[in-house]
Amino acid sequence: MTLIDGKKTASDIKLEIAAEVAEMVARGERAPHLAAILVGHDGGSETYVANKVKACEMCGFKSTLLRFEDDITEEALLDEIRRLNEDDDVDGFIVQLPLPRHIDEQRVTEAIYPEKDVDGFHPVNVGRMSIGLPCFKSATPSGIMDLLERYGIETKGKHAVVLGRSNIVGKPIATLLMQKATPGNCTVTVCHSATPDIATITRSADIIIAALGSPLFLKEEMVKEGAVVIDVGTTRVPDSSRKSGFRLCGDVDFENVAPKCSFITPVPGGVGPMTICSLMKNTLQARKNKM
Amino acid sequence: MTLIDGKKTASDIKLEIAAEVAEMVARGERAPHLAAILVGHDGGSETYVANKVKACEMCGFKSTLLRFEDDITEEALLDEIRRLNEDDDVDGFIVQLPLPRHIDEQRVTEAIYPEKDVDGFHPVNVGRMSIGLPCFKSATPSGIMDLLERYGIETKGKHAVVLGRSNIVGKPIATLLMQKATPGNCTVTVCHSATPDIATITRSADIIIAALGSPLFLKEEMVKEGAVVIDVGTTRVPDSSRKSGFRLCGDVDFENVAPKCSFITPVPGGVGPMTICSLMKNTLQARKNKM
Repeated sequence: MTLIDGKKTASDIKLEIAAEVAEMVARGERAPHLAAILVGHDGGSETYVANKVKACEMCGFKSTLLRFEDDITEEALLDEIRRLNEDDDVDGFIVQLPLPRHIDEQRVTEAIYPEKDVDGFHPVNVGRMSIGLPCFKSATPSGIMDLLERYGIETKGKHAVVLGRSNIVGKPIATLLMQKATPGNCTVTVCHSATPDIATITRSADIIIAALGSPLFLKEEMVKEGAVVIDVGTTRVPDSSRKSGFRLCGDVDFENVAPKCSFITPVPGGVGPMTICSLMKNTLQARKNKM
Repeated sequence: MTLIDGKKTASDIKLEIAAEVAEMVARGERAPHLAAILVGHDGGSETYVANKVKACEMCGFKSTLLRFEDDITEEALLDEIRRLNEDDDVDGFIVQLPLPRHIDEQRVTEAIYPEKDVDGFHPVNVGRMSIGLPCFKSATPSGIMDLLERYGIETKGKHAVVLGRSNIVGKPIATLLMQKATPGNCTVTVCHSATPDIATITRSADIIIAALGSPLFLKEEMVKEGAVVIDVGTTRVPDSSRKSGFRLCGDVDFENVAPKCSFITPVPGGVGPMTICSLMKNTLQARKNKM
């Protein structure tokens, strides 16, 4: 069993990006610039955005954090987005979700110019990814594909089972895995809350992507010997022994599933660190698209 | 075994549309207007476009056919598209594919305003469909969903197997079948040229969508008793007994598969007639979106 080290892989990729940025800067080019909009003071969002800013520093990017109180109006937020759309110094930007209830997240997402949408959530990027055209791929599926590639995991002709059909993980990772590409070329099955017998399906899987957000859902008896298991779950479960009062729990019963696997990602330290890495890759690409 | 009559269903839907248009016109509204661009003299394209014009007549739509010789430059074609984009009298328009080799089909597709893209091929519409937002769904997948709905076929929790991963059928029908909707909510498996043992997978399918373009691919022994089989294949095979010199052949060995099915579509007369119907539905929607 090989433990897939997402933290190490993410660090490698960031070093590669930093080297490329150093070269750009040495050539007299401006470094990539990522802006992030953070509304309110949600603990999770604060952490995510802080990690994104830190990743920018590691990659040699310029970063700008724009903070707003959670009583900002939708119109004022849209004005900020329009300003960033037109700001030639900003290569890409993100609006950290979730947003307060009085703001329409879809409207905000669609207000971002697709060429600056480094989260890959705009319909144009979702559509271009589905069609197989150059685009900003959304972070989690893109990070999973990088892990499969860097660990040399054969995907062609394999049966990949995706648990979950969310717009940010399930559907896009299914699309990427079935695409005629490397990695890719999998036979793909998507299971979800309406699937009556998930275990029968996962037992036939060569690769399982668990993205249900259901802690410890995938058990030993649901996995065949030698399977590749990618755990996207990150549910916070209360843990009084931790300073934070919680720990992250994946969708996979790691302790019992891991011994049967050829490759498996841990939680934390698997897919998680890769997502920010994908954002950095997209931001670098946004910069290069303008050169 | 119930034979799914696409011709009859398409005719029903067109009558419903015609009734709605008659009401619109009686209210003093303008009827929907579909324009079609046809480049060159490809036999298949001529037939398709003629059928679309005929369907417009049946629905009470205004239609305009714009013909160009196959030496039209890409720039001249893009100019026509820009003109139709800005023409308030045109609710939706299509560019009949394939185009001559010197013209970039993707560039042409993306030049159409998404709100007039009644073929649903623009990345914005592909992306919105994937996300589950209101959009113009592409014709063939939308027609298949209509058949499932109008024949009252239960889809929730069923295992749907899609054969083929094309951008115009395989990928979008997989997306629609897995969506949390009715019809929808299927567990979906997508198979393709890199799938090693398709028969094992189709034998577990409650619903099979055959869209490989491989004549008579799906045989009796690949289908379980009671399955629903939707045949999207329309390969022209030589047939000297026909005036045209060819007949349309589906992906399903109909004669031997049909007796095992609960529902099956024939070729021709199954999915085929539904595709033009979906185009009419989208054009009506485009008109209503402007009202």
